[in-house]
Amino acid sequence: MQTLENFQALISQKIEGFCRKNGEERILQPVNYILQLGGKRVRPLLALLAADAFTDEIEPAVYPAIALEIFHNFTLMHDDIMDNAPIRRGKPTVHEQWNRDVAILSGDAMLIQAYQLIIKTKSECLPAVLQTFNTTALEVCQGQQLDMDFQTRTDVSVDEYIEMIRLKTSVLLGGAMKIGAIIGGASIEDQNHLYDFAIALGLSFQLWDDYLDTYGDGNQTGKQVGGDIIANKKTLLSIKALEQATEEERKIVSGETVLENTAHKVERVKSIYASYDVEEFIKSMTRKYHQTALEKLEALSIATHKKEGILQLVEQLKERTH
Amino acid sequence: MQTLENFQALISQKIEGFCRKNGEERILQPVNYILQLGGKRVRPLLALLAADAFTDEIEPAVYPAIALEIFHNFTLMHDDIMDNAPIRRGKPTVHEQWNRDVAILSGDAMLIQAYQLIIKTKSECLPAVLQTFNTTALEVCQGQQLDMDFQTRTDVSVDEYIEMIRLKTSVLLGGAMKIGAIIGGASIEDQNHLYDFAIALGLSFQLWDDYLDTYGDGNQTGKQVGGDIIANKKTLLSIKALEQATEEERKIVSGETVLENTAHKVERVKSIYASYDVEEFIKSMTRKYHQTALEKLEALSIATHKKEGILQLVEQLKERTH
Repeated sequence: MQTLENFQALISQKIEGFCRKNGEERILQPVNYILQLGGKRVRPLLALLAADAFTDEIEPAVYPAIALEIFHNFTLMHDDIMDNAPIRRGKPTVHEQWNRDVAILSGDAMLIQAYQLIIKTKSECLPAVLQTFNTTALEVCQGQQLDMDFQTRTDVSVDEYIEMIRLKTSVLLGGAMKIGAIIGGASIEDQNHLYDFAIALGLSFQLWDDYLDTYGDGNQTGKQVGGDIIANKKTLLSIKALEQATEEERKIVSGETVLENTAHKVERVKSIYASYDVEEFIKSMTRKYHQTALEKLEALSIATHKKEGILQLVEQLKERTH
Repeated sequence: MQTLENFQALISQKIEGFCRKNGEERILQPVNYILQLGGKRVRPLLALLAADAFTDEIEPAVYPAIALEIFHNFTLMHDDIMDNAPIRRGKPTVHEQWNRDVAILSGDAMLIQAYQLIIKTKSECLPAVLQTFNTTALEVCQGQQLDMDFQTRTDVSVDEYIEMIRLKTSVLLGGAMKIGAIIGGASIEDQNHLYDFAIALGLSFQLWDDYLDTYGDGNQTGKQVGGDIIANKKTLLSIKALEQATEEERKIVSGETVLENTAHKVERVKSIYASYDVEEFIKSMTRKYHQTALEKLEALSIATHKKEGILQLVEQLKERTH
């Protein structure tokens, strides 16, 4: 379909214009740097698709859509400091390329710049859009806090983990679609359907990411199979296994018992997962959220062909990760 | 006068209410902590005084006024990380009390919370208020960047230093008064007079701070006399002296030549300052900005008694620091 490509081109063009306008201002160089590392621009795409489902005039949604991408990249800049991450998209992270203080301060500037774009929303929609944006932004911070807290906890439940990824990644997808829908003139009911659609979609993709890391085909995903297991990362898989594991198994899954041979470790942990049907559990959870997403899309009070762009994006994202 | 005390009580009460509403939410504990360290609440006071000069209804200015205090404290939380400051107002800084990541993330949440309050501005004023707030917020970040850059430079000019303190401290005072004036219904001209008033006032206070650190009475200021000299801090005094200093003097003022005896160092640097009339220079600069401030206040198109609250605050601030 033409639309999705058009939207992608429009977003690229607007982000380039934004960076050009930032020019040589010192504090904004890291902003331009992280934006120019690329990315799928999923959040602005969702906003434009949501607006497009309700109006032929998507222009008013463009700046708020870009604001969501700026916000997303602000969270990446600050999260990378907290995670001590050296590399993002194959390049040095901002705190590596410059230093910690630059990454803090330019991140702050970037958050303010997101607001500078969001306030370009037409005035009749501004209060609702700002409300959604603020709530979402605060929830994303809460998600990051939970993620950090979970690193040092051994008793994280499945529900807590789902809540963490909902806050850390899904609410911004939901917020993007809701903001697009508000600007497009959707009813409150349809705004909520799209929000719920994006939340469920985000959860299903995140869980599928966890699944593929352990059970995927490394050649297709481009990642080391078992990377999460080797890094003792908390995922839905390890959390589910820990719920039922024996003390000996718990030590292996949590990394307390050190297995030097990584291939052996991956095999051992996978055999523990197998004994508790963890693979089937995560597949069924993923299916459940994917199903919920489709039901929410179905419930929208718009013609089926208006949903095509959204469905096409879902397919595109699936192809990249499944 | 009754008004100023009333405003101070109102601000305290609203900040307490804000903290209470934050409750036990983990990410907001450092927000409550830093707000409860106290402070003079100058920015919300300026906003309320500005609104009060043009309207009897100051209620609509209260939340935006509080937003300015929240924003100010957000900058303190992040600046303290960058400055490796262990103590703020006699208590451990947030990154000391918790850790670096908490200070980054709770600071981010605090900036978002400032926006949550600012959007409570009545809708007819919202675009102008947000515009002012965004511009101001970005400038404050630029000021912090300049301040950090200056630490490692030896060729900072007087004009550059003034521009740095204008951005780092004065624009937020200006922004506070402008936002109050907008909500109070002031003309654009009066909004600008108040903005310029606060900029000049901020500069004069900041320069006076620099002056007192070297020439003040330690018993009155509560600070160690010569603290800036001992710490090799860049101030208008050292910058002005460096403009004309000999190579030997430059090394002493910049701290390149280490003088272990601090009393001796302070005396030596002050004698260098004396040979270039630095004391008189900073006094005349301070007077100049103070004069500009009063002229801008004079130019306001409101009755003289309406300016009383503002003048009273100026006097109160002077008493505390002079």
